[in-house]
Amino acid sequence: MEEPLAVAVVGASGYTGAELLRLLLVHPRIRIASICADRAAGKRIDEVFPQFRGRLDMPIAEFDPAAIAGTAQLVFTALPHGHSARAVDALRQRDLKVIDLSADFRLDRASVYEEWYASADELSHPAVGRLAEAVYGLPELHRERIRTANLVAAPGCYPTSAILASAPLLHGGLVEASGIVVDSKSGVSGAGRSPGLATHFPELGEGIRPYKIAGTHRHTPEIEQELSKLARGDVSLSFTPHLVPMSRGILSCVYARPTDSSRNARVYQEAFEKYYENEPFVSVLGPDALPDTSFVRGSNRVHLAVRYDARAKLVVAIAAIDNLCKGSSGQALQCCNLMQGWPEDMGLEAVAAFP
Amino acid sequence: MEEPLAVAVVGASGYTGAELLRLLLVHPRIRIASICADRAAGKRIDEVFPQFRGRLDMPIAEFDPAAIAGTAQLVFTALPHGHSARAVDALRQRDLKVIDLSADFRLDRASVYEEWYASADELSHPAVGRLAEAVYGLPELHRERIRTANLVAAPGCYPTSAILASAPLLHGGLVEASGIVVDSKSGVSGAGRSPGLATHFPELGEGIRPYKIAGTHRHTPEIEQELSKLARGDVSLSFTPHLVPMSRGILSCVYARPTDSSRNARVYQEAFEKYYENEPFVSVLGPDALPDTSFVRGSNRVHLAVRYDARAKLVVAIAAIDNLCKGSSGQALQCCNLMQGWPEDMGLEAVAAFP
Amino acid sequence: MEEPLAVAVVGASGYTGAELLRLLLVHPRIRIASICADRAAGKRIDEVFPQFRGRLDMPIAEFDPAAIAGTAQLVFTALPHGHSARAVDALRQRDLKVIDLSADFRLDRASVYEEWYASADELSHPAVGRLAEAVYGLPELHRERIRTANLVAAPGCYPTSAILASAPLLHGGLVEASGIVVDSKSGVSGAGRSPGLATHFPELGEGIRPYKIAGTHRHTPEIEQELSKLARGDVSLSFTPHLVPMSRGILSCVYARPTDSSRNARVYQEAFEKYYENEPFVSVLGPDALPDTSFVRGSNRVHLAVRYDARAKLVVAIAAIDNLCKGSSGQALQCCNLMQGWPEDMGLEAVAAFP
Amino acid sequence: MEEPLAVAVVGASGYTGAELLRLLLVHPRIRIASICADRAAGKRIDEVFPQFRGRLDMPIAEFDPAAIAGTAQLVFTALPHGHSARAVDALRQRDLKVIDLSADFRLDRASVYEEWYASADELSHPAVGRLAEAVYGLPELHRERIRTANLVAAPGCYPTSAILASAPLLHGGLVEASGIVVDSKSGVSGAGRSPGLATHFPELGEGIRPYKIAGTHRHTPEIEQELSKLARGDVSLSFTPHLVPMSRGILSCVYARPTDSSRNARVYQEAFEKYYENEPFVSVLGPDALPDTSFVRGSNRVHLAVRYDARAKLVVAIAAIDNLCKGSSGQALQCCNLMQGWPEDMGLEAVAAFP
Repeated sequence: MEEPLAVAVVGASGYTGAELLRLLLVHPRIRIASICADRAAGKRIDEVFPQFRGRLDMPIAEFDPAAIAGTAQLVFTALPHGHSARAVDALRQRDLKVIDLSADFRLDRASVYEEWYASADELSHPAVGRLAEAVYGLPELHRERIRTANLVAAPGCYPTSAILASAPLLHGGLVEASGIVVDSKSGVSGAGRSPGLATHFPELGEGIRPYKIAGTHRHTPEIEQELSKLARGDVSLSFTPHLVPMSRGILSCVYARPTDSSRNARVYQEAFEKYYENEPFVSVLGPDALPDTSFVRGSNRVHLAVRYDARAKLVVAIAAIDNLCKGSSGQALQCCNLMQGWPEDMGLEAVAAFP
Repeated sequence: MEEPLAVAVVGASGYTGAELLRLLLVHPRIRIASICADRAAGKRIDEVFPQFRGRLDMPIAEFDPAAIAGTAQLVFTALPHGHSARAVDALRQRDLKVIDLSADFRLDRASVYEEWYASADELSHPAVGRLAEAVYGLPELHRERIRTANLVAAPGCYPTSAILASAPLLHGGLVEASGIVVDSKSGVSGAGRSPGLATHFPELGEGIRPYKIAGTHRHTPEIEQELSKLARGDVSLSFTPHLVPMSRGILSCVYARPTDSSRNARVYQEAFEKYYENEPFVSVLGPDALPDTSFVRGSNRVHLAVRYDARAKLVVAIAAIDNLCKGSSGQALQCCNLMQGWPEDMGLEAVAAFP
Repeated sequence: MEEPLAVAVVGASGYTGAELLRLLLVHPRIRIASICADRAAGKRIDEVFPQFRGRLDMPIAEFDPAAIAGTAQLVFTALPHGHSARAVDALRQRDLKVIDLSADFRLDRASVYEEWYASADELSHPAVGRLAEAVYGLPELHRERIRTANLVAAPGCYPTSAILASAPLLHGGLVEASGIVVDSKSGVSGAGRSPGLATHFPELGEGIRPYKIAGTHRHTPEIEQELSKLARGDVSLSFTPHLVPMSRGILSCVYARPTDSSRNARVYQEAFEKYYENEPFVSVLGPDALPDTSFVRGSNRVHLAVRYDARAKLVVAIAAIDNLCKGSSGQALQCCNLMQGWPEDMGLEAVAAFP
Repeated sequence: MEEPLAVAVVGASGYTGAELLRLLLVHPRIRIASICADRAAGKRIDEVFPQFRGRLDMPIAEFDPAAIAGTAQLVFTALPHGHSARAVDALRQRDLKVIDLSADFRLDRASVYEEWYASADELSHPAVGRLAEAVYGLPELHRERIRTANLVAAPGCYPTSAILASAPLLHGGLVEASGIVVDSKSGVSGAGRSPGLATHFPELGEGIRPYKIAGTHRHTPEIEQELSKLARGDVSLSFTPHLVPMSRGILSCVYARPTDSSRNARVYQEAFEKYYENEPFVSVLGPDALPDTSFVRGSNRVHLAVRYDARAKLVVAIAAIDNLCKGSSGQALQCCNLMQGWPEDMGLEAVAAFP
């Protein structure tokens, strides 16, 4: 039996880190070698996340790239943007493979990153030299490049759902590239583990609300970038994220104008089925079913549906994913499997725990 | 002191009927004269809805138009479609004023009704002769006609939110009339009180799902009808309803292409503020706030926002209402106030119970 | 028509303050004269709580007892403990009637207060001289004293439910005074509006958890104090509060050993019915119904049931209330009505908005 | 490599059956040989439960014991009570090992079963002759007997939590055996997949309610039976189940009087730690933590805490489990592992998907 791959998780005190540890624990060829989280350093992981009681009681260390290089072969980084870039750079200098779950290496161009992520403290990208080696970690779009990558930038949760719902349409030239609508609904875990009024239970326990709409959410350029590659031209879209009173799940509805309004629903259905026919995690639903986040909860699967609304002459495509799994940590592990040459679904076979 | 108006509520065993009774109980000039509900006849209202314990213990009667005519001056009917039409006709024959909360008199043309509501048992509209006297009960659009109406058709919950979010745009010719997107998210009470798998708690307690999308939901023609009047021309839209894990509230996002892409956000903001400037229940939010169903829960208010997404060249308008109040029973009572010549907000002044 | 009573609300930026304003707005004989909240001073109330948009746009002032004395006749204080005591003292010095919603005047003896509420900064009660004039604001127990009180200490939400569920049992000597169990389940709004990890949505959106159990929650002595008066002897109980994934509502289950195990269920039922027979807000349910927080949500009502478990020889009594209304602000207004000699349910007639 | 064990799941259209399939799919030594569910026969499992899309598309068959005997070695039955007994008998006649998730073989004595489960149609136990060979499938109590059993009766979800919270107390003679209180709070999936008004989303989406209290819930005798064995004498308890607005999870609080009130909290803590020291799925929390259903969701783990309330002289013990996993299907699989001589946690290592 081959030695398991030793991995480190940096930034383990957030939901993304915890989800990653949950998945890594049941992966047959991975060993968790170290766990880092500056804020929680000194505690045990099962003190910070009681779900690990009896299963994982490793101490949490401060981030130390040299120490990691001594124990791990591959590192998952799940730090706030800016911080992640610096950590990734330090790890890459020690030749460790890195899968980064932050926003720092998702945007191809530093100028776009700086436009959306710069702060008063930090105007430029903290590790601009690493951008060229980063591969956008959406296997359905970039599988071959991920296999050989040393640095993978795992996509955001909203972009994964929006891109997968739109890809067959834009790749096939089936819809206009401008004026696309992406209306997304997210569980609250997407906002992270830091408390605030906006995520205080009574403020949203029984209501729904949009936020950062009309071109102001940072995932907008990430979605446009990837869709533009597929469309071989500039794509513009209006992105409306919402918080829904549930913990997990993202449902994204994409609305686009057909390039030819004489096509019928069957054309779009077939385009989706063909585009995703060999994908291990994508289910294209038929005309009698629609995606529901309940059915992908805790799993790495994507449920997709497409319809043509002949009245309004609009194509409607819908994706449901688990924001923490396929929208983040599960996808990162899927990339890891590709980078190691393992079966893509190894350790990711779990079905949603419904209900 | 004037005698209070004696009203009857027909169809009181559903959520709409209960909400109406809740509102009527605190109205200073209304007396509940009788309550009918065939399924629950013989029980007391506080047995069917325990929230009325200690406040209202009237017996529920079978529907009997003659008996109602002997006790009431105005009747609210909240029956399933088809049934409502027949009940309304019987009540109108006795010259009672009626506010109908079903779909039966919302569509101006019988042919459209029959296209969307006909069943194998009933192919044609059951009271086609009454369509002409019915007024669509959305005061913000038809206030003057409601004042003098004898039969008001209170709008559906989705249409109220979608129409109010779109009205200033279409009335002002600010957006294209075709290809509009209406993406709506509803609390589950909108589905009524009859249990089924789709509304069984574990099936949707922690997920979100769309249903009847792409031109298949019956509220589509109702929204189009009213928006077409405003636009003075045919409006087409794609309507996507969703069920959200909450009991009350509707949030509708409308996306439309501007007729002139050189306009800035301010134009739309001013159009909204002007259109609604004298409305007693509508709040147009400024550029730093967005609607949230939590803040209108249990109240008759509408929170609206409009934005211009210059990247995607799309106008985004959003409305939040309580589906059972402004989206149904509150609005019906608002119409009643208009028909009686009372202050429009009488008995409807309550603020949302947040949180 | 008589002049309305001018009231001030001090501490209006929390959920309790907002609930109070909601109720005051529809009270026919009260005028809101001023609103204070140090943290939110300078903002308008509808900026802090958007549910007031279009209904109440008063500016929020800093707390200034002299200014309040110039505009108001009665003051509701809803400040954190310690702070409230000092504010109350300042207001009472100006002869204003005060209804305090904090814990500061609920415990009869300063020593008990200091045992449970003292901090390193503040070891003794900040206004011990006012304790004697404070009346515990539970009308079902202390109605006559409240009528003539100048300072009312409105009870906590857990105590209201626990005391009302137990009162007929202890008053009638029907159960043993020791070893009583109070197992309570609360909506999250009871924790206030300050965000923290424990009330961060994803941490409790889909789970239930107990906290501060086995004699460590500060409401324990308050419940024991009032029950001991009823029992005319020391009562001891074990109190277990839980957070439930809902915003409002408290359900409390009380378990006690009968003083005579030959009694049947009927005895307890009759004791409850008799004890509460003239209460305007209490409904004692019969043998075929049980309390449910859904049916009292947003209302000032209490739903109670009592059973005798002959197998286990235990009396089980259950109360459901709205923690923010009957458990706090509604009860405070009920006390105000009593102090003013008005009908006890004035402005509090609203039925729960179910669902 | 050894051949995997071929298993059949009978009653796969309910939540329990779906949870079992979810767990079996990732078990390394089990193969799902057939799936039966009379109501859903003819459909595929991923049509009935869309979470299986892309992972399991087996057709659902009608129950046919002969066919099962030809394909499977062990059978999980998850049918309604009464039905299960007959199916189990038919399977046992063919010498198949059976793990039954219904109530039919949990009660040792037919007379007790008949007292609680008899209906007008069926007065006596349908397979009384099989009672003697059934072993109550709670490994923490009956591990050795389960290893050699041919028929295991997997416990109900409430009893698992109540028994595990009480076992060290009664086994050690630490508490009185009479007058124990069990106050349990359950997610709604425990009510099964058949819709009804009581589980209709709006009826309980934002409230909590008790049901079947004071000795009327069928799990009462099951809990008493097992606790009486531990106590070597009759145990009586009052059981109060509640529905909480969440899909999964049970939290049970047990209150009992100490046999010696001079003991301190440490005695109970040590008793729990010792009793469960070698248990693979039980975590006894320390004095600074309390159970929370969120942290066991989707996992087979049990989180337990015990406290002594010296004020009230009551021992308080609390258990949190996932009702569908450790409270049903996970436990059934744990029994299967024991019966096969496999590591007890094989296929059950997954950590809760929190949040």
